[in-house]
Amino acid sequence: MAAWGERLAGVRGVLLDISGVLYDSGEGGGVPIAGSVEAVARLKQSRLKVRFCTNESQKSRGHLVGLLRHLGYDISEGEVTAPAPAACLILRERGLRPHLLVHDGVRSEFAQVDTSNPNCVVIADAGEDFSYQNMNKAFQVLMELENPVLISLGRGRYYKETSGLMLDVGAYTKALEYACGIEAEVVGKPSPEFFKSALQQMGVEAHQAVMIGDDIVGDVGGAQRCGMRALQVRTGKFRPSDERHPEVKADGYVDNLAEAVDLLLQHADK
Amino acid sequence: MAAWGERLAGVRGVLLDISGVLYDSGEGGGVPIAGSVEAVARLKQSRLKVRFCTNESQKSRGHLVGLLRHLGYDISEGEVTAPAPAACLILRERGLRPHLLVHDGVRSEFAQVDTSNPNCVVIADAGEDFSYQNMNKAFQVLMELENPVLISLGRGRYYKETSGLMLDVGAYTKALEYACGIEAEVVGKPSPEFFKSALQQMGVEAHQAVMIGDDIVGDVGGAQRCGMRALQVRTGKFRPSDERHPEVKADGYVDNLAEAVDLLLQHADK
Repeated sequence: MAAWGERLAGVRGVLLDISGVLYDSGEGGGVPIAGSVEAVARLKQSRLKVRFCTNESQKSRGHLVGLLRHLGYDISEGEVTAPAPAACLILRERGLRPHLLVHDGVRSEFAQVDTSNPNCVVIADAGEDFSYQNMNKAFQVLMELENPVLISLGRGRYYKETSGLMLDVGAYTKALEYACGIEAEVVGKPSPEFFKSALQQMGVEAHQAVMIGDDIVGDVGGAQRCGMRALQVRTGKFRPSDERHPEVKADGYVDNLAEAVDLLLQHADK
Repeated sequence: MAAWGERLAGVRGVLLDISGVLYDSGEGGGVPIAGSVEAVARLKQSRLKVRFCTNESQKSRGHLVGLLRHLGYDISEGEVTAPAPAACLILRERGLRPHLLVHDGVRSEFAQVDTSNPNCVVIADAGEDFSYQNMNKAFQVLMELENPVLISLGRGRYYKETSGLMLDVGAYTKALEYACGIEAEVVGKPSPEFFKSALQQMGVEAHQAVMIGDDIVGDVGGAQRCGMRALQVRTGKFRPSDERHPEVKADGYVDNLAEAVDLLLQHADK
């Protein structure tokens, strides 16, 4: 058992990334990562609080939860912190009317939002909908605004599908930032506001919480900057070079969620 | 007549950008910019040397020159410095076999290049071919290389077509740089090597040459960093804010190429 397991003492709440930790997405929905269904069940039976914290922005929460339940997970929409609902709150607060560069699968999350005469652009993981035409339209909307506002649901570089690595929204956000000479506002990991909202919804302080994810920068680095502990799993988009990352060092590296839960159940109460 | 015209004294050679200076591209080929056909003719009848220096990477030189001749320009392939032929030289010198993320219109420039078992990616202005699928393929090729090499034909942010502003290759290069955590090598303006090759081909020293373009960063800033003088035309992608650019100040701003040629013919010999 890893010697660093003692670092998990005093943990009261666990934030779980979804893609790459619970399942790998792909054709037909995706496949669960070995041991993760049981690991989530064990966590939920323990005294630890559990919440899911995802940058998934291609599917609505309803769709995502339906997919995970189909794979065997005990999970409900109310347990998931996701960027699209968080973005809707921000749009309403600031009177912003977005042009949506998003996948059709997440469009329903924006059903109540006024999209007429847009005064900002919201970009999410649009997947195949990142056509030149759609990117150029978003670019033109931004260039016509006096104060261009670009809201990006996460800024991930890539994720892993069963078929291989896939470009994520962050790459396309960079493209628009460069073309327009602007900087996007990020809603999602690694934004501190996003982690804080997940902690609030879980009712646990940052120093009592641990984030478990497959993204060394977005999950581990982001959570640590908020005062949380963070573990990286060697599943999903994990690459061996992550363990030698020049800027981010996880509190621990585990082969998968099952190992993380073993360690948590052994050490958290101490 | 502009007071700064005296700064053109001693000019012996002129580098002309093409898109936005000679013509605006668009449906059906494009339209010449008013006065530019005659301006090029007058320049060529003068004692000044003239060369065309373009970042056009969507069309082959042959196609581009055919289009310009159709619009009334006196121009031949041998007078054009363009990034695709320059990239081919580099690929050959370094034994690189590219995966090509380019428009079909420029593919013929790479006909002699070995593209089997690629060990680098060449990205050009692919236009509508910047699909998610094509971008993702280039990304996957780079991620599988131990030492990923990305060669970008220019790094323009956008250009102007008759239908509006269009995202240029630079935006997509940024996307791949970010996703892979690498930096591209630029072949084209504003790379100093590219300007120098155009000057060599023209047989004129940098301090005796002036660049005329519509891009404050790629044309004006790039040429000035090479020791050339540079004028920005208020045609093509020019925007009024360019005249207040925080980092680049042109030696002069002119309404169009015709005004630039008027000034050159008046002052260059002095």
